[in-house]
Amino acid sequence: MDSEQRKHALALIQQALPELDWTLHAPKVKRLSRDFHWFSPVLKRLLEDKQADAVVRPRSEEELRLLVKTCVQHQLPLILRGGATGNYGQLVPLEGGILVDMTGFNQICELVSGVVRAQAGIRLAEIEMLTRPSGWELRCMPSTYRLASLGGLYGGGFGGIGSINYGPLGAPGNVLSVKVMTMEAEPRILHIPAPQALLLHHAYGSNGIVLEVELALAPVHQWIERLDVFDDFTDALDYADAFARSPGLVKRQLALFAAPIPSYFSHLNGNYQASQHAVISVIAQESEGFCSHLLEKYRGHSAVRQSAEEACEANASLMEYCWNHTTLHALKIDSTLTYLQTAFNYTNYRQQIIDMADLFGDEVISHIEFLRDNDGNITTSGLQLVRYSTEERLNEIMDTFRNNDVKINNPHVYQIEDGKQGEIKPEVVSVKKCLDPKGLLNPGKLRGWDVRDTLVLDNDPLLLTDRYQ
Amino acid sequence: MDSEQRKHALALIQQALPELDWTLHAPKVKRLSRDFHWFSPVLKRLLEDKQADAVVRPRSEEELRLLVKTCVQHQLPLILRGGATGNYGQLVPLEGGILVDMTGFNQICELVSGVVRAQAGIRLAEIEMLTRPSGWELRCMPSTYRLASLGGLYGGGFGGIGSINYGPLGAPGNVLSVKVMTMEAEPRILHIPAPQALLLHHAYGSNGIVLEVELALAPVHQWIERLDVFDDFTDALDYADAFARSPGLVKRQLALFAAPIPSYFSHLNGNYQASQHAVISVIAQESEGFCSHLLEKYRGHSAVRQSAEEACEANASLMEYCWNHTTLHALKIDSTLTYLQTAFNYTNYRQQIIDMADLFGDEVISHIEFLRDNDGNITTSGLQLVRYSTEERLNEIMDTFRNNDVKINNPHVYQIEDGKQGEIKPEVVSVKKCLDPKGLLNPGKLRGWDVRDTLVLDNDPLLLTDRYQ
Repeated sequence: MDSEQRKHALALIQQALPELDWTLHAPKVKRLSRDFHWFSPVLKRLLEDKQADAVVRPRSEEELRLLVKTCVQHQLPLILRGGATGNYGQLVPLEGGILVDMTGFNQICELVSGVVRAQAGIRLAEIEMLTRPSGWELRCMPSTYRLASLGGLYGGGFGGIGSINYGPLGAPGNVLSVKVMTMEAEPRILHIPAPQALLLHHAYGSNGIVLEVELALAPVHQWIERLDVFDDFTDALDYADAFARSPGLVKRQLALFAAPIPSYFSHLNGNYQASQHAVISVIAQESEGFCSHLLEKYRGHSAVRQSAEEACEANASLMEYCWNHTTLHALKIDSTLTYLQTAFNYTNYRQQIIDMADLFGDEVISHIEFLRDNDGNITTSGLQLVRYSTEERLNEIMDTFRNNDVKINNPHVYQIEDGKQGEIKPEVVSVKKCLDPKGLLNPGKLRGWDVRDTLVLDNDPLLLTDRYQ
Repeated sequence: MDSEQRKHALALIQQALPELDWTLHAPKVKRLSRDFHWFSPVLKRLLEDKQADAVVRPRSEEELRLLVKTCVQHQLPLILRGGATGNYGQLVPLEGGILVDMTGFNQICELVSGVVRAQAGIRLAEIEMLTRPSGWELRCMPSTYRLASLGGLYGGGFGGIGSINYGPLGAPGNVLSVKVMTMEAEPRILHIPAPQALLLHHAYGSNGIVLEVELALAPVHQWIERLDVFDDFTDALDYADAFARSPGLVKRQLALFAAPIPSYFSHLNGNYQASQHAVISVIAQESEGFCSHLLEKYRGHSAVRQSAEEACEANASLMEYCWNHTTLHALKIDSTLTYLQTAFNYTNYRQQIIDMADLFGDEVISHIEFLRDNDGNITTSGLQLVRYSTEERLNEIMDTFRNNDVKINNPHVYQIEDGKQGEIKPEVVSVKKCLDPKGLLNPGKLRGWDVRDTLVLDNDPLLLTDRYQ
């Protein structure tokens, strides 16, 4: 569908649904069509001219249903938008269409002991504010939790803070079910339990419209946030590793930043020297007594220490220096930087981290996050900062990591498969076939859709027949 | 000191302290000098004639201080007794003396968010009863938690229920500090923080008199207890392993029992066939939804299911079929059985378990407990049942395990070092030198004490100088 045809379809849809909350002013539509993909100079170029034709913010499921129905009728693409904190252009419309601002769906639907069910547009920080009084918090969340939406985490996120305990969001047990609207002429509402629900996870909203997500929660602790500094990189690594690996030391977050990354933290860097390496940890109050012992052992020094409550009140959590917030802080100081996403091997990550740091010197700067993998092993991911020169050199760097048995989850591509080492489960495409048979949800995003005839597809991967409708 | 000399010393001590709560009736003293070491036919024989000369149950720290002072004065050994649920004769006096029943010290001293400090003689179940209302429970405890004391767990225990999350009790962060009375002519009270406090852990009360233990706690979940059965042993193993390894499935306990062990559970075995293998799991309510999916995958069936609350009210928790309670249930049915304590390798425990089960057939029956090790790795321990023939054959079996790279923590020995592959930190002996310079706490128990001149001892392993007194 070319631009003229889309304009025509859009006009008809507007005419049919004038009562919706439309945004049509082109600069505003363009602004709303962006996320944080500009962290990547490659994506910045590739997605520069991509945007929606209009934005709608539905105020009810009925409004959304009417919009979906009418879009299907006129074959206009539809793209979902949460908090717009993604890093790979998850929400950027590749072939125009209507961007659906989901932030109107911001209610908690149910909160029982250890479980919350909420609407997709609710902000993650809002969920925590509502669950904390009963002793529960999110199991994992991105560093962007203040802005990020539940649907965005589900559709475009991986894990993050808390993954040191619960693994990635997609590990069995973290997500319990989703409620979905199909992209059909007569939209249906489906309740899909896990594990089938996970076929819609991390598909960037391209294979179904997620309305609600049911999550298992984590018990609240009295968290202490710390930033400790070290003159020696290996000492910092070993300190973080010792903390990560001790099953009796309760933590929520552990990250390691090689110099000069800590110097990019402009609100904190008065507390240490630019040459120092840092570990940010969020640890349970009852485990903090061991920090002084471990710091002594690894020649580290306390630089920042605050309770999570103090941090929250001051809007100054150290969690907002971790995961991809690190990249954001660095880019504010040096806009020539970009980043990698790497997954070290759980059996020898310590040596891999040291080797890769030695190999690239100042060109690739270590930012290492500790987490559990899907099999419960403690391991590490890198969100290394890269001094960007050319796309060719960036690809060369990534190849060197691959050749050293470090996986790359490429953040410089915008199609789903390319971020996952080129592969995706065929069932993810099958789900799109079930829930979006015309392929109208952000066409171009799921490459497997375009070659779906070559995949062996399951006609009913969600086990939908009569079960969950 | 021979029996006559001891009798004389005892008479003098009694004369000096007539107001203490003495037990002198020989059969009762003998009964109180026993624990569950009779699980081992070897220990049963070795410890048959060992017993205290008298028992005292102090009603206050002052009474205990007077007793210690007077025992030191007359050089009479002193041995500590908690709930008497140990399995290696931890409390059995090797050279007579006064057995100190610590159960009078049964108060909670302090309870704050995530931390409890309590007296050594309190029962573990009592601690949980008091911490649960504020949302906390024990991080790890033996299956004997209803009778076992805190001091007993600290002095003679390893971990158990909950170690799948927090590792052994000795992993950094689980124990925060201890309060100790020295065995000296003028007994001192010392407060010793971790990690130094751990030098008194698992030393069977032979290197100090622990009065209080401060523990970090775990947040309470709504636990569900399940016993699921499988026709195939490998299916049962893989089910338990999948549950253990999934970081998003929250659990407190996971154990695998090869047939015919489940048939020994006489209050449960109406729910399944004698040929079936079983997995007992204690899992968070919010994770239970995945059981049906995993059971289907591994061809298992639910046999028993109850909430922890129901179980507690009925005094019928499935936790009391795990760890060394398994051995107890089995011995009630077949008194010719005994058991092993094995530690599989975290990198290949699955294959080791299968190989050892194949190797020994019905002679050694798999009872496997899942846990985290000190480095946070998920691994397994075995408390295999053995059809006992001779001591020689038992040693042969243990050697075969060792030769297959499975560690043996030998439960058929009564000296501390022998249960730990023959080794112990020299600091443990140094602590005895500091806190029990005359070697009066259950002499004979810590073999290293007798060869202490050949060890390089640290004069102040507790960093006591001025710091904690």
